Amino acid sequence: MSIREEIIKQAEKSKIAAGQMANISTEKKNSALYKIAAGLLERSEEILEANKKDMEKAKNKNLSKAFLDRLSLDENRIKGIAEGLKEVAELADPIGDILEMNRRPNGLQIGKMRVPLGVIGIIYEARPNVTVDAAALCIKSGNSVILRGGSSAINSNKKLAEIISENIKKAGLPAKAVQLIQTTDRKAVKELLTLNEYLDLLIPRGGAELINRVVNESKIPVIQTGVGNCHIFVDESADLQMAAKITENAKTSRPAVCNAAESLLIHENIAEDFIPKIVKVLSKHQVEIRGDKTAVNIDDSIKDAEESDWDKEYLDYIISLKVVDDLEEAINHINKYGTRHSEAIVTENYTNSQRFLNEVDAAAVYVNASTRFTDGNMFGLGAEIGISTQKMHARGPMGLKELTSTKYVVYGQGQRRE
Amino acid sequence: MSIREEIIKQAEKSKIAAGQMANISTEKKNSALYKIAAGLLERSEEILEANKKDMEKAKNKNLSKAFLDRLSLDENRIKGIAEGLKEVAELADPIGDILEMNRRPNGLQIGKMRVPLGVIGIIYEARPNVTVDAAALCIKSGNSVILRGGSSAINSNKKLAEIISENIKKAGLPAKAVQLIQTTDRKAVKELLTLNEYLDLLIPRGGAELINRVVNESKIPVIQTGVGNCHIFVDESADLQMAAKITENAKTSRPAVCNAAESLLIHENIAEDFIPKIVKVLSKHQVEIRGDKTAVNIDDSIKDAEESDWDKEYLDYIISLKVVDDLEEAINHINKYGTRHSEAIVTENYTNSQRFLNEVDAAAVYVNASTRFTDGNMFGLGAEIGISTQKMHARGPMGLKELTSTKYVVYGQGQRRE
Repeated sequence: MSIREEIIKQAEKSKIAAGQMANISTEKKNSALYKIAAGLLERSEEILEANKKDMEKAKNKNLSKAFLDRLSLDENRIKGIAEGLKEVAELADPIGDILEMNRRPNGLQIGKMRVPLGVIGIIYEARPNVTVDAAALCIKSGNSVILRGGSSAINSNKKLAEIISENIKKAGLPAKAVQLIQTTDRKAVKELLTLNEYLDLLIPRGGAELINRVVNESKIPVIQTGVGNCHIFVDESADLQMAAKITENAKTSRPAVCNAAESLLIHENIAEDFIPKIVKVLSKHQVEIRGDKTAVNIDDSIKDAEESDWDKEYLDYIISLKVVDDLEEAINHINKYGTRHSEAIVTENYTNSQRFLNEVDAAAVYVNASTRFTDGNMFGLGAEIGISTQKMHARGPMGLKELTSTKYVVYGQGQRRE
Repeated sequence: MSIREEIIKQAEKSKIAAGQMANISTEKKNSALYKIAAGLLERSEEILEANKKDMEKAKNKNLSKAFLDRLSLDENRIKGIAEGLKEVAELADPIGDILEMNRRPNGLQIGKMRVPLGVIGIIYEARPNVTVDAAALCIKSGNSVILRGGSSAINSNKKLAEIISENIKKAGLPAKAVQLIQTTDRKAVKELLTLNEYLDLLIPRGGAELINRVVNESKIPVIQTGVGNCHIFVDESADLQMAAKITENAKTSRPAVCNAAESLLIHENIAEDFIPKIVKVLSKHQVEIRGDKTAVNIDDSIKDAEESDWDKEYLDYIISLKVVDDLEEAINHINKYGTRHSEAIVTENYTNSQRFLNEVDAAAVYVNASTRFTDGNMFGLGAEIGISTQKMHARGPMGLKELTSTKYVVYGQGQRRE
């Protein structure tokens, strides 16, 4: 069987499973999630053994320390994954909710029912926990899922997928509702991207390169997630102590995540006052600051920024800094260089706060708070499958509801149209 | 300038216009719509002259009568288009609505604000009224739009687009918020489909061939609209008189539209009783019936259906007919051959009505009513840009709200994340 045939066969099974999943009760879905959690804990030794193989291969390839950290599992991480499953089980099931049911003048009652999307493909990189987290969200939202993890995690993923399939079957769900692509051949992804007859949605999770490839080649609708070149704009009227604390938090509390701040914009009227303050705060965390000329003139510990710095998602202890003439320049800069993820203004000026909220084009816009809050748990949605930085279907953190569609249900008494 | 350069230049202008449109007041947008309506009426002679050129060319090409009908404009149709603009002006503006604002435990107030999508591309065929209808919906929803009409309507469309641009400018909107692609070269569409940097959404309006081409080639998110292979299932317990009237209405009230019924499924226990009744009703309208063997045995005026008939959207006075064993076979048939548009059951059985609503996978599912109701006006959404038969972003009739996205707005008091 060729890779294409193999992938199509899997996709066919996923489609059949999706039809069954759409009508599985919440109780059964939750039972499946609890069973998987128990299964992972019971068989943690097998998982760790499989993970050890992946780790050894990765070490031999001299992959980075950060990469190895993402790939590795231990008892605690497995416990964490099992906890995550229980959390998803405890979330409300969105399927079957009826939204906005109205009676029309002709007596028809028309409502929108929340239904699963169908078959979801997830393409991701080294983290094996994504295998379980993504499966859990897809199961709870009544979808079936095809998982394609990074080749470096193949042994871990196979073991995890095996445990998932066994346990969802025990709970009365179709075993094929969760399928892992077994080959690590890169052709498999190429083929998967063409299967718009079978898949309803693709979510790439990973770096910009992966996401761009999927967007460019896919015939299946894609939701872009993740890349965050997030800004903090400190307005003329800002409470400078608040601005410093928010910037410190947004930059240094977890620099490797997408909602961390990458760039600081400062109103020129407060630049001389604020820059020395923020340099002091950030230097405590060894943050490298790359600034424009005005900034460097104010504080010579700031390095010169290049044009390319305004585009960068450092994901590291580095921040770019630009002094702007006014709110308008700040908004224009953000709309030009931002990635439509999370953007914040620190201000005491009412009009400016409203203009920023209205005119900045991003998934989440903040007044007087750290950009670090953009995620499903912090927004009250529960676990999330990613943060959408595009405008179609879902924007911002994607929880269970964002993995659903709707259908109109219409109750009549024999109505015909004139 | 090459066609690619020309299209990119237009797209750049559309993107700038979209940024401006997002912050235009409802009053100005409505004023633009009223001004366009007045402009169309004032300059109807010019429009009719341009349309005459298109009609002459089309006649010389021996295009079908139905095609010529779709292409042609007259005073009444222009009045109708102008009325449509006023109706859109009278709809509530969705932009700026705040949905689900909540206060989180840490005091952050998080809400979802409705915002425009950005730049929308509409690719359509012969009907020049789409030029105005689509522009109106995009203007009201704060988007900018790039229109690509069929080459046969180019003179009509150019005149209409000219009147639109002049009048939106007069109302204080960016003139480039509505742009028509001026060339009729087919390469223009090919180029347009690659511009995912500029366009946020593409909506093809037309036949299956156009839609498939756009889905296959586009890098921009696409919403598929229109194709409707709609079924009526007459259950064992149906009120047969109601079933006959609903079928008559769904098939014959306007056979050329997507929500017309194309296929009739009949429970075997009532087939002998119902088939002669429905043959009588449909024969009044000269409807050709293509049935399976059981049906043909019951009434020999029914022609033999071929396997391919189950797939067909006739858009004509033809209907396919199949006798099924039970509800389950009906649901499976619909989920196999349907196009996920509109599907109806006629039944007095409560359990079956619920199973049909839950298990049939379509944009709109009906109990005891004609499928003909699936459109924006009948569903209470007002004018629509099409009926989405896919599950992402929007499903069913797409009104103004379906042309929007959301962004999270977050009001803080200095919150930082631990």
